[in-house]
Amino acid sequence: MSDAAYELFVRQQADRGIDVDHVKERIKKLKVETPSWGYGDSGTRFKVFQQVGVPRTPLEKLDDAAQVQRLTGMCPSVALHIPWDHTDDYEQLRSHAEALGLTLGAINPNLFQDDDYIFGSLCNSQPAIRHKACQHILECIDVARKVGSSTISLWLADGSNYPGQQSIRQRKRWLQESLETVYQALDPHMLLLIEYKFFEPAFYHTDLGDWGMAFNVAQKLGPQAQVLVDTGHHAQGTNVEQIVAYLLDEKNLGGFHFNSRKYADDDLIVGAINPYELFLIFYQIIDASVDEDAGVRATAERINYMIDQSHCIEPKIPAMIRSVLNVQTQYAKALLISLDQVGQAQEKQDVLAAEQAVREAFECDVTPLLRVVREEVGVPVDPMRDYLSSGYAESIRARGKGGASW
Amino acid sequence: MSDAAYELFVRQQADRGIDVDHVKERIKKLKVETPSWGYGDSGTRFKVFQQVGVPRTPLEKLDDAAQVQRLTGMCPSVALHIPWDHTDDYEQLRSHAEALGLTLGAINPNLFQDDDYIFGSLCNSQPAIRHKACQHILECIDVARKVGSSTISLWLADGSNYPGQQSIRQRKRWLQESLETVYQALDPHMLLLIEYKFFEPAFYHTDLGDWGMAFNVAQKLGPQAQVLVDTGHHAQGTNVEQIVAYLLDEKNLGGFHFNSRKYADDDLIVGAINPYELFLIFYQIIDASVDEDAGVRATAERINYMIDQSHCIEPKIPAMIRSVLNVQTQYAKALLISLDQVGQAQEKQDVLAAEQAVREAFECDVTPLLRVVREEVGVPVDPMRDYLSSGYAESIRARGKGGASW
Amino acid sequence: MSDAAYELFVRQQADRGIDVDHVKERIKKLKVETPSWGYGDSGTRFKVFQQVGVPRTPLEKLDDAAQVQRLTGMCPSVALHIPWDHTDDYEQLRSHAEALGLTLGAINPNLFQDDDYIFGSLCNSQPAIRHKACQHILECIDVARKVGSSTISLWLADGSNYPGQQSIRQRKRWLQESLETVYQALDPHMLLLIEYKFFEPAFYHTDLGDWGMAFNVAQKLGPQAQVLVDTGHHAQGTNVEQIVAYLLDEKNLGGFHFNSRKYADDDLIVGAINPYELFLIFYQIIDASVDEDAGVRATAERINYMIDQSHCIEPKIPAMIRSVLNVQTQYAKALLISLDQVGQAQEKQDVLAAEQAVREAFECDVTPLLRVVREEVGVPVDPMRDYLSSGYAESIRARGKGGASW
Amino acid sequence: MSDAAYELFVRQQADRGIDVDHVKERIKKLKVETPSWGYGDSGTRFKVFQQVGVPRTPLEKLDDAAQVQRLTGMCPSVALHIPWDHTDDYEQLRSHAEALGLTLGAINPNLFQDDDYIFGSLCNSQPAIRHKACQHILECIDVARKVGSSTISLWLADGSNYPGQQSIRQRKRWLQESLETVYQALDPHMLLLIEYKFFEPAFYHTDLGDWGMAFNVAQKLGPQAQVLVDTGHHAQGTNVEQIVAYLLDEKNLGGFHFNSRKYADDDLIVGAINPYELFLIFYQIIDASVDEDAGVRATAERINYMIDQSHCIEPKIPAMIRSVLNVQTQYAKALLISLDQVGQAQEKQDVLAAEQAVREAFECDVTPLLRVVREEVGVPVDPMRDYLSSGYAESIRARGKGGASW
Repeated sequence: MSDAAYELFVRQQADRGIDVDHVKERIKKLKVETPSWGYGDSGTRFKVFQQVGVPRTPLEKLDDAAQVQRLTGMCPSVALHIPWDHTDDYEQLRSHAEALGLTLGAINPNLFQDDDYIFGSLCNSQPAIRHKACQHILECIDVARKVGSSTISLWLADGSNYPGQQSIRQRKRWLQESLETVYQALDPHMLLLIEYKFFEPAFYHTDLGDWGMAFNVAQKLGPQAQVLVDTGHHAQGTNVEQIVAYLLDEKNLGGFHFNSRKYADDDLIVGAINPYELFLIFYQIIDASVDEDAGVRATAERINYMIDQSHCIEPKIPAMIRSVLNVQTQYAKALLISLDQVGQAQEKQDVLAAEQAVREAFECDVTPLLRVVREEVGVPVDPMRDYLSSGYAESIRARGKGGASW
Repeated sequence: MSDAAYELFVRQQADRGIDVDHVKERIKKLKVETPSWGYGDSGTRFKVFQQVGVPRTPLEKLDDAAQVQRLTGMCPSVALHIPWDHTDDYEQLRSHAEALGLTLGAINPNLFQDDDYIFGSLCNSQPAIRHKACQHILECIDVARKVGSSTISLWLADGSNYPGQQSIRQRKRWLQESLETVYQALDPHMLLLIEYKFFEPAFYHTDLGDWGMAFNVAQKLGPQAQVLVDTGHHAQGTNVEQIVAYLLDEKNLGGFHFNSRKYADDDLIVGAINPYELFLIFYQIIDASVDEDAGVRATAERINYMIDQSHCIEPKIPAMIRSVLNVQTQYAKALLISLDQVGQAQEKQDVLAAEQAVREAFECDVTPLLRVVREEVGVPVDPMRDYLSSGYAESIRARGKGGASW
Repeated sequence: MSDAAYELFVRQQADRGIDVDHVKERIKKLKVETPSWGYGDSGTRFKVFQQVGVPRTPLEKLDDAAQVQRLTGMCPSVALHIPWDHTDDYEQLRSHAEALGLTLGAINPNLFQDDDYIFGSLCNSQPAIRHKACQHILECIDVARKVGSSTISLWLADGSNYPGQQSIRQRKRWLQESLETVYQALDPHMLLLIEYKFFEPAFYHTDLGDWGMAFNVAQKLGPQAQVLVDTGHHAQGTNVEQIVAYLLDEKNLGGFHFNSRKYADDDLIVGAINPYELFLIFYQIIDASVDEDAGVRATAERINYMIDQSHCIEPKIPAMIRSVLNVQTQYAKALLISLDQVGQAQEKQDVLAAEQAVREAFECDVTPLLRVVREEVGVPVDPMRDYLSSGYAESIRARGKGGASW
Repeated sequence: MSDAAYELFVRQQADRGIDVDHVKERIKKLKVETPSWGYGDSGTRFKVFQQVGVPRTPLEKLDDAAQVQRLTGMCPSVALHIPWDHTDDYEQLRSHAEALGLTLGAINPNLFQDDDYIFGSLCNSQPAIRHKACQHILECIDVARKVGSSTISLWLADGSNYPGQQSIRQRKRWLQESLETVYQALDPHMLLLIEYKFFEPAFYHTDLGDWGMAFNVAQKLGPQAQVLVDTGHHAQGTNVEQIVAYLLDEKNLGGFHFNSRKYADDDLIVGAINPYELFLIFYQIIDASVDEDAGVRATAERINYMIDQSHCIEPKIPAMIRSVLNVQTQYAKALLISLDQVGQAQEKQDVLAAEQAVREAFECDVTPLLRVVREEVGVPVDPMRDYLSSGYAESIRARGKGGASW
């Protein structure tokens, strides 16, 4: 029946003017990095519910990540978080990854859990602490070199909790100064991704509070600094896909942290709360990938897609699989948008036709397509079912409770 | 100079038609309960920055609370959280409190930190867990009896993180059923305060998500169940003072958890972010306290005022003092509203005059008034300065780091 | 090809345990009322862009509504707004509707456009204005009798713009008093739907600001008063489907005003911004329709589905068709949820399986199903295409510009 | 008594290290422009309640503005909106203003009420409409020349209502292109203020949606383009004062549109909903005015303060007086912040002391100070009382109903 469904799908898409072979090719190229910390325990400020079987070491995190790659074929790299993944032997980490068919991806400095950072790290009013924070990033750059990564992904938790607590302007300058130091240390092929966040853990102001601040900092640093969009880091009502389009046009969209939220930075399974928003983000990217400006096209093609989520109640590996597959699903749907049709309607200022041309693709069921793609790349057609019956979940129970956490 | 300032204040208020003696009397009656957990370490999901000198035991928490009472004279009772304040000897706890001039106030059950509660407590789909949660509240009722408290203050963390995860209707029924059991166990003079919260720690739905749900549950239970308003538990843009007015009119406003927030449930120092909102809450209460309906008046007079905050970066005792004084300040200002003047403007539908009549009181500087009130009740006129020079902060450093936390 | 697609669909659904015949039957029963004012001009406070061809009279509005019914077969009734649809000859209106195969549905009083209502209508501090507002609703009840409608749908724009402007408690009492008067006048078979709204046109407080206030009012009035949920009338982050589930369980969900929004009450095409939310609303309704409690089931079955939107830039009739079809699409998808499967996963507290069981249905493409349903009920399989080629849009251009507006 | 109050105030401030003479000097320099349209009728999309006595012509608007200036002494200039204030005789307008002691301030183009602008103006996909919009701004530049103004204040209502409706990237480019044209036409001393807005009247995306977009556009244009912050144009929870501090540090804060809101862009009386936010904005400005960087200081000094509000229910002139006085009050309070004290606490990372040092100034009652300032500049000590008893309100009733509106 699957074949019949796929054949029908191909014919339907052909009628819509969509070349399914081209779509398949692009789906196969989509890679999403999973985060090492996404395999460990996490929770809310009220409670971390520890799970049985959570990895105890960076090596075990890679083992779990390898399952996701084995089942989906689209997650060949793993992001690290230092010091959570600190080891005395990065060679071992790297070779373990390679043996699993993985590479090591973005290195994420931790600038929020050392006691010294209670009032900030790169923006701290004490020069010694700013220096320490810079040194930590330099160390992360070194880790990147050791593990063969070219990406430093910076989330800055700095901010303040009360009016007057800190000088916003001074901190802004310290931030720029600190990042200049860091930026100078990058190897020429390296990329510094700069994330922004609306609130939390600081509650009054965040030093990199929105895309505009991250973009401005990146612009001043130079071409190796690019903005990273975390889908959960915006005020309610923000049009995230507009920011994506905007940064693409500025050739300054370096990557994504995908996750899902209803109100704050809930870090839920990607696409679980508002799948249409994820689809619309991909619509903007796909549209930019055929821009007349080669720089915009290149930006769209080079985006680092990464998952960043912190589940409280669900098992980690299947939650990661589900997130990854949701990304794939919405990407596949967005590829079914007839950009010609949209463009023609836009040109005629036909609101309803333009909206429908985009939406129509979202309504398509891409299951038959994705099954065929998976067959063709040699992964299970139903990765989740395969995972659940694989015995892997049972096998890791031996790790017990109390594994890696943050 | 203080005397001159106060004399001037009295004359100014007399001109406005305000009887300062009456105002002083009411200020002196304002009592705000502080929470035992507010003296311990707390933080965000990313980090709890441990402080030196944080109390290690419930007894030490009371010692700290006694400082706040000593300095402000308006915090004679302390809320407990079970099991955080669990002890084998509640008699000792009670007598320790009494020796410090304190009483023990609301007992707060903990229904969110036991591993069993990962999917809920009173609403859990497993009867055994619902039973366990009920038993825990019954135990808290027993603690209340032992420590001489008449109030159970229930915050329910129950909810779900994903669409479909749980049956919202079933959980609603289980909640009612569970609370019926609990309600039956109350002594006749006891009060069950029912808190609601918009989100967190559950991210998709909260079983008691807004005042309407808490109110509806309370109505069904009976007169000993009343709604508790936590000022940080609403969606952005919510008119909290309207909810207060509404519940007063329904004679179903049992208490407050005061704290402050900019975006989510930030649990900052009370009144730090939007002091006018706190003032407007008190305006509604004061207005209700002269309602023509005796039941409304009685409701307004019986409100349990409590602090609930969880500071991440500031020392606990002075942060509590500041919160308490902010409450006192805004209450004092609200007492300066000429309700007659407001009423006349309202009757004439004179928007600007009515708004100004309320706002005018907010613009008054109540410092001279509060200094005199403090003199008259025998506490320091500047409690914060007194605390900072008292040596208490230094004396508790011997407790070291790693005290009570959640 | 359509046949092949449908056959495939039926087999796929059978594999999922879904009886497509039953689904079709339910889809055929879904009726959505369209609003007369949705065919006229509307806009923002900044500008109403007048369209050519907008109906000039209530009769012409019915003509347009009849097109939507002709093309979709699911919109047999039309809501009226008084005085926008006021006429001296309601008999004519009714017979015109009947001739078009339509009935007249909910009567909507207008309590916000008369100069007297600047400070409120049913809550106005002047008794004469409250009386006038009540009289207007009584007049609407009379209109209902004349046109054969049994539903009064009340949206109350009352509120205040400034702290202190009005007494919230007094207005609450006046509202109850006013509605008692109105309620007494209802015929036994009539229903009073009570809408709530978070903000706008009042900016500080709205007298019926949330579901809790509407529910409380309705409860006090009696069984003929029920809450109406407008999907655009909530604070950001509100879980609307939870409110739906809650009201269903209370047997007090009388109807919907469907529309779509990104931030405020944007009144966009239904389902255009977050289609998953609409699907999840229907999931709650469908789930309630098989509740063990007959009263809950009956409530779910009796819901009045209505569109309420006010488009600024798109042609009215196709925007209405699109809205209606979006409702049908999401309803159809929600019917494909295997409630058994969800229930089993919920019972096992299997978060991922439960979420997936719900989401899976959303991912289905219901186009083949809806085409067959349309064939079976005798409407065009692609109502929008049919409309666009029908010549109707061209024919009404003769009406010119400057038609009905609000 | 006033004298005693002022003397006491001076002594209290001296104790706090504040030089009241310096404060007075700065207060006297504060000028706030009022908008011509703020004197006309306005309302919500549901209703414009027309008031008796509203000006019928631009000349009458100036008459009303002159009252505000006469009573406050701080509103010597009036912003114009073209075509609302279009006239064939700008000389007459200018000389009328001069005769009243007024100057004409920012010229505001209207790019949202012409039928052509239904799908945008400067970003419209039709070149002819973009050209028309540019021409309109050029016309406004010409008006500026004629009336002696050097400021063009641009609010762009452009955006889209639905996903896919328009190409976000294309519109971004058209916007830049259009503004380049406009920018070239500015005289060397002219300033182009660029406003941003979160939503409304477009509901899906706004082409200048946040400060980052306005800043980026301004940066590309050159030094005569600067960002304008409208206090009502942000998502809920946004830290507006941080944006102010940020733009000051970038030397790119050109002006303000002051107003107040609870949820959306409510355009209420300035400072009516959250006065502390307004105070904190001024804190950032005052802090920047003593920055070590002369460019930052100059930026802080050159800010164009303007009111932009659209009241629905209150009389226009007193509402404007109240707004202006609220600005003055919060500015005066912010001047009482001891920046030294704040700085010292910040340097010690003493959160509570820093917060208190800022907040303390907010708690001061500046009424005695402002009365003296007013005496010294020769305006009534209580402008509102003076207005109400002046007979002006009665005198303009002869204008009748149906005056200028938008």
